[in-house]
Amino acid sequence: MRGVFIVFEGIDGSGKTTQINILYKNLLQHNRIKNQPAGSEYVLLTREPGGTATSELIRNILLNPANDKLCARTEALLYAAARAQHVEERIRPALSSGKIVICDRFIDSSLAYQGYGRGQDLSFLHNLNQLAAGGLKPDLTILLDLPVGAALKRLNNRQVSGIEKDRLESEAVSFYERVREGYLKIAGTGIDNNSAGSGGYLVVNADQELNKVSDRIIDGVGNCLPKLAVQFR
Amino acid sequence: MRGVFIVFEGIDGSGKTTQINILYKNLLQHNRIKNQPAGSEYVLLTREPGGTATSELIRNILLNPANDKLCARTEALLYAAARAQHVEERIRPALSSGKIVICDRFIDSSLAYQGYGRGQDLSFLHNLNQLAAGGLKPDLTILLDLPVGAALKRLNNRQVSGIEKDRLESEAVSFYERVREGYLKIAGTGIDNNSAGSGGYLVVNADQELNKVSDRIIDGVGNCLPKLAVQFR
Repeated sequence: MRGVFIVFEGIDGSGKTTQINILYKNLLQHNRIKNQPAGSEYVLLTREPGGTATSELIRNILLNPANDKLCARTEALLYAAARAQHVEERIRPALSSGKIVICDRFIDSSLAYQGYGRGQDLSFLHNLNQLAAGGLKPDLTILLDLPVGAALKRLNNRQVSGIEKDRLESEAVSFYERVREGYLKIAGTGIDNNSAGSGGYLVVNADQELNKVSDRIIDGVGNCLPKLAVQFR
Repeated sequence: MRGVFIVFEGIDGSGKTTQINILYKNLLQHNRIKNQPAGSEYVLLTREPGGTATSELIRNILLNPANDKLCARTEALLYAAARAQHVEERIRPALSSGKIVICDRFIDSSLAYQGYGRGQDLSFLHNLNQLAAGGLKPDLTILLDLPVGAALKRLNNRQVSGIEKDRLESEAVSFYERVREGYLKIAGTGIDNNSAGSGGYLVVNADQELNKVSDRIIDGVGNCLPKLAVQFR
């Protein structure tokens, strides 16, 4: 038995957290892949960087605005370390027990942010992360895509409502433009294709009403799960 | 202008801290390589994992006995991350300004402990660390070598005097045997050779009186410094 590994990707402000929670509730209500009652033991919700006690400690180092001297190589290695622990301690055991794992960010965040965004060597990042993840790949990656201006507007609204921007969210617009383009290159596909792309990528236009985005995701996952979950039958 | 990079290696209890402090004071008293008055601005004393604010935060994660779930890959990646930051923020700038840098542990600690000690892939560790250090190599590595039994006896004495063992120091004897053998393989040489080996290694028998060990080190460094510091002239 092996579960299904779903990853959400997208620039900050793309609405990942909101959409992950909507999908999570939907999956709990409609147990789509097992002939068992749905419940929280059926889906694992997790995130990167973080997901384990050790990874959360690493996340604190990465997102602390006081660590402004963090060099690019250190950053890549810290993300990889948090990922190694997360995969070993949480994701693999959950998949082994047949769960659906929904993860907020995974390897492609490193490629998009450190690689395309900061110009670090892509093959280095790829090799480092394959190693950190022990070769684990998502069954489906959902990319929430929207123009950088729209994402920053959402982030600014968050700030107004009192949530402090973290170090990453204070990056420049041109940085996010490169990250967005990087994601689209990784996905290797246009916007709003109707099924997961060749690399198991579902690109969703996130610059529309919340319920339209969530309907798209739930439809997409609903279409993908039966074939992804063939090992359950 | 480029300084001189000296690394101390050895198993826990080999006396590195004590010997580093003796060499440091000696170098401050006798400015051997520059026609300038000696002083603390002439030698940088540092250590791994640690050496920068960020690296110290990483060190706290690594040495905290509460992090008992730390998997081997995470550990290797965290050491590499701390090293990347340490090299970039402290060691390279000091060498660029012409200082002697004395560092407690460097890449060979990862090879000896994670590689020979825990059985992680040596070529992976080598590649990961070359990358983390940006290719920086020590000019001279001083290996303090002694039987594991003697080292553990010293560690136990420390515990009696109230210093708590950290996670690493509570490892098994057989682990330290593998680490010691690993160091000797890396050094590629016998005990107490009179000059730095082919890889710039000086192996010192640390199982003797403190002042005999320090004399050996000060002689060895004194012999090596003039040729290492040729770029100063």
